[in-house]
Amino acid sequence: MYYVNPNIKSLYRTSYNESRKQFLRLDMNENPVGLPTEFFEKFIDNIRPEYVAMYPEMSPLIDKLARYLECQPSNICLTNGSDDAIRLLFQVFGEPGKKVVSVSPSFEMYSVYSNMYGLVHEPVTYDDDFQVNLDQVMNSIDHDTSIVVLLNPNSPIGTAWSETEVRAIIEKAQKNNAIVAIDEAYYYFSSSTFVHYVDKYDNVMLFRTFSKMLSIAGARIGYIYSNSHLIKEAKKASSTYAVNYFAVEIAETILDNPQIIEELMDKEREGREYLLAQLENHGYEYHFNNGNYLLIKTNKHPQYLFDELKRRKILIKVYNNPILSDWIRVTTANKEIMQIFWGSFKEVDHN
Amino acid sequence: MYYVNPNIKSLYRTSYNESRKQFLRLDMNENPVGLPTEFFEKFIDNIRPEYVAMYPEMSPLIDKLARYLECQPSNICLTNGSDDAIRLLFQVFGEPGKKVVSVSPSFEMYSVYSNMYGLVHEPVTYDDDFQVNLDQVMNSIDHDTSIVVLLNPNSPIGTAWSETEVRAIIEKAQKNNAIVAIDEAYYYFSSSTFVHYVDKYDNVMLFRTFSKMLSIAGARIGYIYSNSHLIKEAKKASSTYAVNYFAVEIAETILDNPQIIEELMDKEREGREYLLAQLENHGYEYHFNNGNYLLIKTNKHPQYLFDELKRRKILIKVYNNPILSDWIRVTTANKEIMQIFWGSFKEVDHN
Repeated sequence: MYYVNPNIKSLYRTSYNESRKQFLRLDMNENPVGLPTEFFEKFIDNIRPEYVAMYPEMSPLIDKLARYLECQPSNICLTNGSDDAIRLLFQVFGEPGKKVVSVSPSFEMYSVYSNMYGLVHEPVTYDDDFQVNLDQVMNSIDHDTSIVVLLNPNSPIGTAWSETEVRAIIEKAQKNNAIVAIDEAYYYFSSSTFVHYVDKYDNVMLFRTFSKMLSIAGARIGYIYSNSHLIKEAKKASSTYAVNYFAVEIAETILDNPQIIEELMDKEREGREYLLAQLENHGYEYHFNNGNYLLIKTNKHPQYLFDELKRRKILIKVYNNPILSDWIRVTTANKEIMQIFWGSFKEVDHN
Repeated sequence: MYYVNPNIKSLYRTSYNESRKQFLRLDMNENPVGLPTEFFEKFIDNIRPEYVAMYPEMSPLIDKLARYLECQPSNICLTNGSDDAIRLLFQVFGEPGKKVVSVSPSFEMYSVYSNMYGLVHEPVTYDDDFQVNLDQVMNSIDHDTSIVVLLNPNSPIGTAWSETEVRAIIEKAQKNNAIVAIDEAYYYFSSSTFVHYVDKYDNVMLFRTFSKMLSIAGARIGYIYSNSHLIKEAKKASSTYAVNYFAVEIAETILDNPQIIEELMDKEREGREYLLAQLENHGYEYHFNNGNYLLIKTNKHPQYLFDELKRRKILIKVYNNPILSDWIRVTTANKEIMQIFWGSFKEVDHN
């Protein structure tokens, strides 16, 4: 009786209400321990109630990010996490009725926002060997395509795209007036980046987040890096104060102390290498994909592992998708955490 | 050449880049000093880096708000400030091409989001005596109306709506299948509320924020309170994690310590009464509107006052709108702040 936007009326959204605070969280690719205490206190020391009471100021952080990315402030739009970046992508640049080309499985919010803004999501699916056919992706891009989404690396599976492949995709999209969004949420876990294509092509938007390696998912901050024309349009659909004062302060503290990034990278790498060595030694089949997560083919059924590890206060991720139904996904973290995981995992997954 | 949503292409958004941190901020109705230090430390003490690293959990806060409002958790949608609530209103319930009825001048984001989602904003304007014609509002509501917006109290001007008037507006909207959004951003500064109409009518959505009296605009948190049917639809268009961990933590701390609200109310009232007494004693014409702001008719030109007070590190608000061109708007705050303002104001605005 009251009007409801038909795209939203028919939309399905999942929701989780159970608290994860008392668990060891290896299910959503967060850093389960967070930023080191000493570093964290630098941020806390700068917090002032009078600035918490004030609408947040984003310019100093944008200037710092511009120096970090060697671009102009007009190339950056701060977002309330990557989720907000994805919304802006579809709201501003998504032509209703046209296609969104991506791979599947991938980060599910691309599909949600595609539906929310009336586009048609046509992902190219991975095969059982975790390969995706480049020709199929290329052939999907046509005059009816509005947006192409590339996750670099893709989550939860995916071989890295090569420079040649990405260039071919961007150029085909360009010929068809389509925008290419490159989501580098897992940047820092590997050195692979396509950041240089923002300058080279006029249809590329790069998304990054402070949620993964930079360990502040709870603060909600990410950004879009693109040419100033696309950023100008994206900003027009952004909330006036999309990003909060706390997020701005921590992000500035991180950029002012870049050694913390090295420190976080080293810790994760050490833990991941420990876990990979255990898996090798015990003959496990696994898939590492340049992010802070591994796919592991388990002896027991993934749901049994999920339940038994949850009973031991450890959360992992399992899938309904047939391609992934034999696998669990585990977030990688520092060695101490990986040792705890491995101890419980061995106990539960014995032959 | 690349598709841009036409509503966004033609949209005009303002932006401010100058920092306000070094000023006494009486221009945007924030609390210029923020939460009391002792209370603030309760919140800071609970902050943990491991939870900052984790996607935020909103259920415990929603449960607390439901107890506070005496409703169900399914009646509440947390928002990234009121701005986010306004976006959800227009995105979900705004029928493109139809009318938005409100008053003018009012909070400018209603007009921005109305345009962003392709609705036609038709506000009823205040006259020079700061009166708005109820019949005109009633007559504007017809079969072509999608949304009616009532700010209670309206900002920056407006006499309070009576219960009878609001009921008449809601019922006329209901007959025309239109949603009524009641924005109570300035709740707590006066006791006036239309919260009881959420239960009584199926077309009412109430917006509240923690930005004004509750003094955490920088944290970005507000909420929509409505019937579970409308909330369910609004939530489908919400970001998965619209509100950050810090905002959730402070909001919970406030709800757990309700005496802080009384304390904040007392301080603002004392400062406001001091300023009102000064204005009375000095024969100023002013307009108080049940929020934490006053309109003052000044001797000198408002822009001169703005410039001279800014030179003295005090920010106030002035208007281009002809109805308000002789007035300045000043945020009210505790007595110490109001004394500082009054000292500088007298110096600048002498006859």
